[in-house]
Amino acid sequence: MNNQNENKRTAFNGWRNPKPKKQDKPAAAKKIKEAQPQKPAKVKNTVRQQHLIGSKRVKIMFFGGVGEIGKNMTAIECGNDIIIIDAGAIFPTEETPGFDLIVPDITYLVENKRKVRGVILTHGHEDHIGGVPYLLKEFKVPVAGTKLTLALVDNKLREHRINDAKQINVVPGQVLQMGCFKIRCVNVNHSIAGSLALAIETPQGVIFHSGDFKIDLTPVAGEAIDLKTISDLGSKGVLLYMGESTNIERSGFTMSETVVGATLDRLFAENADRRLIIATFASNVHRLQQIMDLAVKHGRKVALSGRSMLNVVEAAEKIGEINIPDKILVDISKTKNMRDSEIVVVSTGSQGEPMSALTRMANGDNSQVTVGANDTVIISATPIPGNEKLIYRVINNLYRKGANVIYESLENIHVSGHACREEHKIMHTLLKPKYFIPVHGEYRHLKKHAQLAEQLGMTESRIFIPDIGNCVDVSQKGLKRLADVPSGSRLIDGEGIEDEKASVIIDDRRQLSEEGLFIISIAVSNGEVVGEPAINSRGFVFDFHRDYNREMREVIARAIEGYDLSRGTVDELKKVIKRNFRNYLLKKTKQSPMVVPVVVEV
Amino acid sequence: MNNQNENKRTAFNGWRNPKPKKQDKPAAAKKIKEAQPQKPAKVKNTVRQQHLIGSKRVKIMFFGGVGEIGKNMTAIECGNDIIIIDAGAIFPTEETPGFDLIVPDITYLVENKRKVRGVILTHGHEDHIGGVPYLLKEFKVPVAGTKLTLALVDNKLREHRINDAKQINVVPGQVLQMGCFKIRCVNVNHSIAGSLALAIETPQGVIFHSGDFKIDLTPVAGEAIDLKTISDLGSKGVLLYMGESTNIERSGFTMSETVVGATLDRLFAENADRRLIIATFASNVHRLQQIMDLAVKHGRKVALSGRSMLNVVEAAEKIGEINIPDKILVDISKTKNMRDSEIVVVSTGSQGEPMSALTRMANGDNSQVTVGANDTVIISATPIPGNEKLIYRVINNLYRKGANVIYESLENIHVSGHACREEHKIMHTLLKPKYFIPVHGEYRHLKKHAQLAEQLGMTESRIFIPDIGNCVDVSQKGLKRLADVPSGSRLIDGEGIEDEKASVIIDDRRQLSEEGLFIISIAVSNGEVVGEPAINSRGFVFDFHRDYNREMREVIARAIEGYDLSRGTVDELKKVIKRNFRNYLLKKTKQSPMVVPVVVEV
Repeated sequence: MNNQNENKRTAFNGWRNPKPKKQDKPAAAKKIKEAQPQKPAKVKNTVRQQHLIGSKRVKIMFFGGVGEIGKNMTAIECGNDIIIIDAGAIFPTEETPGFDLIVPDITYLVENKRKVRGVILTHGHEDHIGGVPYLLKEFKVPVAGTKLTLALVDNKLREHRINDAKQINVVPGQVLQMGCFKIRCVNVNHSIAGSLALAIETPQGVIFHSGDFKIDLTPVAGEAIDLKTISDLGSKGVLLYMGESTNIERSGFTMSETVVGATLDRLFAENADRRLIIATFASNVHRLQQIMDLAVKHGRKVALSGRSMLNVVEAAEKIGEINIPDKILVDISKTKNMRDSEIVVVSTGSQGEPMSALTRMANGDNSQVTVGANDTVIISATPIPGNEKLIYRVINNLYRKGANVIYESLENIHVSGHACREEHKIMHTLLKPKYFIPVHGEYRHLKKHAQLAEQLGMTESRIFIPDIGNCVDVSQKGLKRLADVPSGSRLIDGEGIEDEKASVIIDDRRQLSEEGLFIISIAVSNGEVVGEPAINSRGFVFDFHRDYNREMREVIARAIEGYDLSRGTVDELKKVIKRNFRNYLLKKTKQSPMVVPVVVEV
Repeated sequence: MNNQNENKRTAFNGWRNPKPKKQDKPAAAKKIKEAQPQKPAKVKNTVRQQHLIGSKRVKIMFFGGVGEIGKNMTAIECGNDIIIIDAGAIFPTEETPGFDLIVPDITYLVENKRKVRGVILTHGHEDHIGGVPYLLKEFKVPVAGTKLTLALVDNKLREHRINDAKQINVVPGQVLQMGCFKIRCVNVNHSIAGSLALAIETPQGVIFHSGDFKIDLTPVAGEAIDLKTISDLGSKGVLLYMGESTNIERSGFTMSETVVGATLDRLFAENADRRLIIATFASNVHRLQQIMDLAVKHGRKVALSGRSMLNVVEAAEKIGEINIPDKILVDISKTKNMRDSEIVVVSTGSQGEPMSALTRMANGDNSQVTVGANDTVIISATPIPGNEKLIYRVINNLYRKGANVIYESLENIHVSGHACREEHKIMHTLLKPKYFIPVHGEYRHLKKHAQLAEQLGMTESRIFIPDIGNCVDVSQKGLKRLADVPSGSRLIDGEGIEDEKASVIIDDRRQLSEEGLFIISIAVSNGEVVGEPAINSRGFVFDFHRDYNREMREVIARAIEGYDLSRGTVDELKKVIKRNFRNYLLKKTKQSPMVVPVVVEV
């Protein structure tokens, strides 16, 4: 099924390394094109053709990153081939307390694992690669990405003791064949190096997936977004555009990363006598590069703080994504004997993560760095929604220690990695897609991105706003919604994995955290309750003006007395105790904690 | 101690209703002024003088609203008199899961209740009045405020079945005597009608407390902030300014409330054929007034939705704070038979509160209003930090139902009630205080407000950044920090009240919510374990690929076997079981749930 589609809208030219056309059969392909995907009877019914017809239909499935920000994952299926675009994770919220990570439910992919030809990762952020280990634990499949992306994936796989993953290193401009799909990697700008958009040639036409992108025509390192290729693709015809929507609510144009460098340069100069501590995302290697270059310019050494900062810098240097100036790095433990004016500490914790280097500095329990009045702390990031309270707590604590803190919109010390509205307009205008599916955003973002496409002239019927689990058939005839595939969230806690929808765990945890717990234990011997019930509570708030103990014992005693165990079961007795005790608590305390009745048979 | 202080900086003129000067003794007062508060021996040691000396010292105590946003509460003590400024509450966060409300710990005030002369409320927002019922349950004291403030307090007191509270209705310009304090009520603008700043005459000089304020020179109703009085006070001398700091990070000037009216007017016109649903704070009666007036102009009826919306409008109309045009109100249940173009629904839920009218509309379970494609929903509010996720969920769901949603910075549909930096500069410049204490803000806000005062020429030594529990002596000689008073948070859950610091409840709830729970129950008879242990778990995530049951039973059995109950106690056995079982779980599952061992004696 290689490149045999005659349709002008899908015929690529100028691939850098096109694969040999082993099965170049235009005649057969033409028949397929004429055939109705729903009516295979129109073509001659040979086994060969049945296969071709089946494989011609292109389905897109959304496993995450739509209707939400995070755990991006999309699959494209055609015949016996499935490719997966990204395999992200998301961090838990207060609604899923205590879990470590959330990844998409990939039941459908596991059931069809013999079809899966590979995973292609657009870039190395957690919401695009965090789910890779959990995917590879289910089935073996090649993982493709740029070198920084794969280096970051590699760190994860080692943590999970996965040593046999097949990795495919790609560069922008390269074309990768995965099953019947020909995937062209297109360079884009983002807040991490090695970010890609994907132009995927399918039997129905080209599907363009933006990955996460911005248009930075003066990037710090590497190339600007490949607008020329994007424009060429548009000229030749794009069937479907799947475009990210994160910043769709922001008007105008995202500033270039170089703006941050200019601001930092000024702050280095203004704080010449003070120690500088800069917190930023470890994965933003271009920003780290700018800081190191400024350190050289202003005669400072760079000390890295935080495990992921050390890991990423090491990985990025190894693959040449960061250029560390000679002797610029100094171990953080050596900085105590250096003058403040000689150091810039580059630290993790820009989101206020509780165990991060910056948070420990703010709390006074970072053994390497003691923050004081001669420190200027620059937080080169904006809070990800939900992290506001954490990061403001860190800022408050840094101020309490006497430091000056520079953060957020006070200065141009951070720029987003995502396109704003004017950039999106450029992308749509260059691609001129026939159909559009907004991705990577909550519903409001997707809806606004759809409205933007309509403003640019696309009719509403050519746009589909997806939800997790949706499956869409795409062809030159239109977008057609098919039956949903199994989907949802898998919650990771230590070594345990939990299916969110089937789970009572979350409800239990929420009830426990909000109302506390009562345990009523009784012993049963030969069908009779023996001894005294034991009452234990945790996390329950008593009104200390009252003594409930006697009343509680009476409630339980009455429940036991009123129940004839010789005629009923122990489970029923537990239910009676639970119901009566809950009613009592609700009436007396207006609270409804979890009540767990326990029976010990002796 | 009425008005006897000669010092020019504290001598007010022009009070509207000065009290008769019963004890006007300038000579005695002069002696007091000369006396050193720390060295009473310098004046003749009569009982009368001792009393005067003791009472001259003015202490300020901070019980809430400093180092945090919320539960504002400050007390001023002089001799045998204490007044309380505001008694606020704050809503719980994920760190205090399941509690209904948090109010300040007022142990100090309870211990000194015979001194407390009254509570003066600056305005009727929850973070200024929410703690009043819990205060009045501890001791009886008069509560003063403007009529809208008292009307809102009254609703609360009725809920708490407090019928005997003495309420003092004040109007701007009025002077209220509470103990030795003479409190002048100064009109300010804010996002609720009847907001006051307080100029408090004390034996040491005038203390000016801003309450919450903005400068709105074109208010919708009522007067603009009384800059003339504020300026006059400044001319005569202000000892100490306590100024709110909520918006100190915002440059410029907060827009006038009338701007919102202009935007809404345009939106009424643009959506002439659609139903309008406007969500806003029920307490912002001026905004409600604007919406009602626009409804008249555009030929719509107003339907109120949400309990607090109905309560506030009723209370505000009763006291004349809102002017409801003739026949403009229609019951929400009647709107189903009206045309969309004839209705504007005014609803609670602008913060995405889970049980609010708007949230129920978005979820499709509001029996009165079914949201659809012909609805334009206007959210006339900005998310309070921490509420972002809730409100965006509501917005997403409204979009899903096909409605158009107008929110946040997309339009000028909301203005803050708090002063921005330029307004703060005006306040400082007019008041020209000798000392300054920033209040109402997290530490970073207070710090930035302090820096603003320094920019305006105040030396750092004249500024104190307070924390909860701090106690400061203020006099013409300076600000002097005294020993802290008992302070903290009291957590309200149903009928229960919990002291945050002494509480294991919060830790328990957090552990339960993050890790879940195991209950190990055993029966003990005559010093011997009998029967089989019962193992129950809740909220714990198992790896379903393994069967732990046998292993867990072995761990418990070994713990029991290894312990000689005839030589130890049941409590020690519980500890052994708990320790062994926790270690086992940590090793096998990398999780550490709460383990509760229970012994039933039979």
